[in-house]
Amino acid sequence: MILILKPNPDQAQISVLIRHIKEMGLSVNYSEGSRTTILGLLGDTSAISPADFEVYDIVERVQRVTEPFKQVNRKMHPDDTILEISGHKIGAGYFNVFAGPCSVESETQILEVAERVKQAGASFLRGGAFKPRTSPYSFQGLEAEGLKLLLEAKRQTGMPIVTEIMSEKHLDLFADVDIIQLGARNMQNFMLLKELGRSDKPILLKRGLSATMEEFLMAAEYIFAGGNTKVILCERGIRTFEKMIRNNLDISAIPLVKTLTHLPVIIDPSHAAGRRDMVQPLSRAAIAAGADGLIVEAHNNPACALCDGAQSLDLDMFDQMMQDVKRRVAFEGRQLQ
Amino acid sequence: MILILKPNPDQAQISVLIRHIKEMGLSVNYSEGSRTTILGLLGDTSAISPADFEVYDIVERVQRVTEPFKQVNRKMHPDDTILEISGHKIGAGYFNVFAGPCSVESETQILEVAERVKQAGASFLRGGAFKPRTSPYSFQGLEAEGLKLLLEAKRQTGMPIVTEIMSEKHLDLFADVDIIQLGARNMQNFMLLKELGRSDKPILLKRGLSATMEEFLMAAEYIFAGGNTKVILCERGIRTFEKMIRNNLDISAIPLVKTLTHLPVIIDPSHAAGRRDMVQPLSRAAIAAGADGLIVEAHNNPACALCDGAQSLDLDMFDQMMQDVKRRVAFEGRQLQ
Amino acid sequence: MILILKPNPDQAQISVLIRHIKEMGLSVNYSEGSRTTILGLLGDTSAISPADFEVYDIVERVQRVTEPFKQVNRKMHPDDTILEISGHKIGAGYFNVFAGPCSVESETQILEVAERVKQAGASFLRGGAFKPRTSPYSFQGLEAEGLKLLLEAKRQTGMPIVTEIMSEKHLDLFADVDIIQLGARNMQNFMLLKELGRSDKPILLKRGLSATMEEFLMAAEYIFAGGNTKVILCERGIRTFEKMIRNNLDISAIPLVKTLTHLPVIIDPSHAAGRRDMVQPLSRAAIAAGADGLIVEAHNNPACALCDGAQSLDLDMFDQMMQDVKRRVAFEGRQLQ
Amino acid sequence: MILILKPNPDQAQISVLIRHIKEMGLSVNYSEGSRTTILGLLGDTSAISPADFEVYDIVERVQRVTEPFKQVNRKMHPDDTILEISGHKIGAGYFNVFAGPCSVESETQILEVAERVKQAGASFLRGGAFKPRTSPYSFQGLEAEGLKLLLEAKRQTGMPIVTEIMSEKHLDLFADVDIIQLGARNMQNFMLLKELGRSDKPILLKRGLSATMEEFLMAAEYIFAGGNTKVILCERGIRTFEKMIRNNLDISAIPLVKTLTHLPVIIDPSHAAGRRDMVQPLSRAAIAAGADGLIVEAHNNPACALCDGAQSLDLDMFDQMMQDVKRRVAFEGRQLQ
Repeated sequence: MILILKPNPDQAQISVLIRHIKEMGLSVNYSEGSRTTILGLLGDTSAISPADFEVYDIVERVQRVTEPFKQVNRKMHPDDTILEISGHKIGAGYFNVFAGPCSVESETQILEVAERVKQAGASFLRGGAFKPRTSPYSFQGLEAEGLKLLLEAKRQTGMPIVTEIMSEKHLDLFADVDIIQLGARNMQNFMLLKELGRSDKPILLKRGLSATMEEFLMAAEYIFAGGNTKVILCERGIRTFEKMIRNNLDISAIPLVKTLTHLPVIIDPSHAAGRRDMVQPLSRAAIAAGADGLIVEAHNNPACALCDGAQSLDLDMFDQMMQDVKRRVAFEGRQLQ
Repeated sequence: MILILKPNPDQAQISVLIRHIKEMGLSVNYSEGSRTTILGLLGDTSAISPADFEVYDIVERVQRVTEPFKQVNRKMHPDDTILEISGHKIGAGYFNVFAGPCSVESETQILEVAERVKQAGASFLRGGAFKPRTSPYSFQGLEAEGLKLLLEAKRQTGMPIVTEIMSEKHLDLFADVDIIQLGARNMQNFMLLKELGRSDKPILLKRGLSATMEEFLMAAEYIFAGGNTKVILCERGIRTFEKMIRNNLDISAIPLVKTLTHLPVIIDPSHAAGRRDMVQPLSRAAIAAGADGLIVEAHNNPACALCDGAQSLDLDMFDQMMQDVKRRVAFEGRQLQ
Repeated sequence: MILILKPNPDQAQISVLIRHIKEMGLSVNYSEGSRTTILGLLGDTSAISPADFEVYDIVERVQRVTEPFKQVNRKMHPDDTILEISGHKIGAGYFNVFAGPCSVESETQILEVAERVKQAGASFLRGGAFKPRTSPYSFQGLEAEGLKLLLEAKRQTGMPIVTEIMSEKHLDLFADVDIIQLGARNMQNFMLLKELGRSDKPILLKRGLSATMEEFLMAAEYIFAGGNTKVILCERGIRTFEKMIRNNLDISAIPLVKTLTHLPVIIDPSHAAGRRDMVQPLSRAAIAAGADGLIVEAHNNPACALCDGAQSLDLDMFDQMMQDVKRRVAFEGRQLQ
Repeated sequence: MILILKPNPDQAQISVLIRHIKEMGLSVNYSEGSRTTILGLLGDTSAISPADFEVYDIVERVQRVTEPFKQVNRKMHPDDTILEISGHKIGAGYFNVFAGPCSVESETQILEVAERVKQAGASFLRGGAFKPRTSPYSFQGLEAEGLKLLLEAKRQTGMPIVTEIMSEKHLDLFADVDIIQLGARNMQNFMLLKELGRSDKPILLKRGLSATMEEFLMAAEYIFAGGNTKVILCERGIRTFEKMIRNNLDISAIPLVKTLTHLPVIIDPSHAAGRRDMVQPLSRAAIAAGADGLIVEAHNNPACALCDGAQSLDLDMFDQMMQDVKRRVAFEGRQLQ
């Protein structure tokens, strides 16, 4: 962290400031140029906020120099993390497809979808029981009943399941879920992050719609800080000015995540555009850019889906897409799980 | 809601689509131009999502025509809502200043600040007990202990208090709080919104950093949908590309909120910029644009504040600011509470 | 400028890098922490781009520490600039209203509008002759003929005029124009900026829709670099995610500009929202926040305006607005020109 | 285009409005729902601006229903456009790589780079003579001299060249250039667009940093409107909140462009991130998503490049990248030109 001082700073105030810095257990590098004086802070500044120093009248600006995330930082853990979850490896060349409906709607529906996506080559079944909806008047998911149906589909097909949690109060209900998803709108629900940090479940952490990479990784750091190191990152589209698509896939997030952290990263091409016709090109781009997997919405009857039908593939489309995915994963020298 | 069809749509598919629309209890206005065919949906579409129709192959795009929010919509309730909370009126010309430290740190601190901001003219004491921090390694607030100190300050000064809730599990702890604040990062924490909707406490709802006005008002609608109509909106800065300030006050939100809804709206100039030197110009702009109040950070010793010191006024600055606020509120013909 | 090195940088490469820095006439401050090594560059780095150093393999990131703008920087020129243009002072407490139609449409129109806005208290007549339109099929302005009509209005009313230039080729046509406006979409049209820098005309520089403050001031710096120091900055709304308004007034730009530079700054509330009903609240906010003036669209018959009718006030509305402006400018202790 | 009226609109005013619409040669579809009245406009609305109707007091909002672009619209021209330029086909499966230095710096440099990128498989030589720089104090390119050097490289290597124009005044200098590039910051320089529309040169049109797809295609429409139909679109990264990269490649732009228009689209992975280490993953994503080509910065000595060295590949890296590109273009069943 560096502190850029205002022109002609008062020496007495500099002394006060330096004393404060040293009391925090940090050392100081003092640099006085013709136009600008800079104090460099040496030591662990991850718990320090720039605002702690911006408050000083002589300080013009504070800039971070090192990333504030530690345990998820690749610098602390140079090798790729490989998670082993319910018989599947995730990360570092092991490629997984998570597929299923936006919402669990009935036993028939979830079983049919589960059977078909399994045959097509998906390794995990996804499905929403608790649904975050922008309107209180929209279908909110089957909730606990939906979770039971997912677990029944898991029992009958042997597919491990991933589903979204929306409340700290529900954690017990998720005891037999294989991966707990934390949704984009809850990426900075710090209490829920802490609760998930205390759990031993793998967490699929979705990036917030306008979150920077640093904020995304700090959310993962929250889970690590609680002791849970089983985190899969998921980029699902960011908000941009484009009005023709619902969100905008941030493809750069893949190489950026790979540089900054050791965690696996998967892509959600369904939410990333909100349009079924863009699922395939975005999936292809994600595989080529180095993603560790895809999470895709597939439904037995998208026109009657209780939410997000427009972005769901029907089961035949999903079959075809998986043919394409297999060819491409093989081309990249990675291994479909 | 209107459905814009692709060129040369199949008549049989149009019939299927129209049947689906009618089954939802809506009527259809059919309009065929030289280049485009449009179906207009007549009836209450607030529970319907555009995605329900985008799924049809013949549909190119779906556009909302009416706002999806109902109970908070000014069209349903033309008069300004005036809330009466702990002896203070809020809204429609009654102007309130909420002031206090970012975090409650000790009994001495919160009492000193409370006494001083009360004398200066603030009507509510604000202070954080549970603090949303981007880093798990930063100070997280005094939590339940902080709430107790706030209540003690309320007892001694008679000032009603507002403080942030971060978890559904904590609702019982907030029984004697006058206004519960829901923070920007939890604006779409739908489970917490539902819980607050079932409570009878006034809610100070902060706008998310990248939330549109529609999303902001839909969050308020969630609270209304649960039966709680005591909502105060708070604009606290949005994320823009500007790097020199932390957030960017959306001044247009004031007239926009006034047009779209009947609820009061206050401004947080402290978080809006993250810089103490901008609190006054932004407060002045907010008063002139028609805000119903301000929520301002004031601290007895900003340089030692445990968070956000850089944006806190010290108590003398707050005194001076309140002199200016009083002159301006009077100039606007509004009434300081 | 500081260079943050990757972990465990090679000493030989550091030497190469330091030699390169010294060859540029700069000194180096070397700081080695436990986790990070930083090189601080001492000297004038305004002509240096971060990319010059990011190219080195051992460099992780480069951060600017001082602003890249020099002549427009308040640090180099602490006092407010006051421009004197055609008998009116602009800046530092002298408040000007620029008013007129979006486009000049006819002699009758421009004369009627000019007479009325002058009576109402505007000091400059604005009007578009060359119009930047997003569609090539829309009305593009009366062009040279429009300029003639503006000059005729100037002759008859004595009001100085401001109008937009869109091409370096047209500079001769603007010989009798009092202030040349450079539009938002041309804010980084560097050739035109250079041309305006060589001219001796006052320039009204509009901020680009997504320009940062630094980019905005660097555009002004281009004009200064050519020798022309008569620049008025104009904030006219930035692009945000809000769909209910065309642009979004960046009210923070006013105090930010005042801190960073000595130049006057005015606000365009008409383009800032694109809606007539928001012109007044935004104007009030701008005056309160410290703007040096307003540029407002006023039209004798907005419903028949050839462009932007929706944001134009009619002449009676403008009269009323000016009553309000006068009261507020007086309240702020500033002087209407 | 549809007009959404305010609640309980006055019938007399509706009549005035409908008369106005009919005078514009359009028909009206009138739809009155329980809460909302809508007027649908039938006919060609591409030259009409929403603001033309927003000006009416009874109109609440105006929404476009058809795209405002016509000649570049795929609906008017369903087949992919294939351009033939200097012996190379571009579009519809013909894949081109444009490579070369950010700036032309010397004859030796440009010749060495040209030879090497040609051998590696690039079809066009790119290089900047006129350089748009954010600082007036940075190197601005060799200008006319740089163009001469590019033409010399073309003569010696036979490679066609693409280079950026920054001024309408320079068009004559570009007589022997094969493709004229219009830069991102000039995407809405309407005068230059018109000039290029009157030329018969192929135009490489770069997307503005915050331009929507509609604005991008309207810029192309400007060129078509002047009679020039040889346009190649180029996505080069958009501005997002991410601070770790300079821009952010909008990968969705590829399938979106392919849906909306018949024009070829290429990707600039060098500017899209501003970091050399991201050129390869972004190029791979672009090929997989269906791009018609890449424009890549390659330099004989990036550490001494006069601009943008950080994002330039050196010539060996470019060789290696081209091996990868060839494999991938073949895998996609496309044909490298």
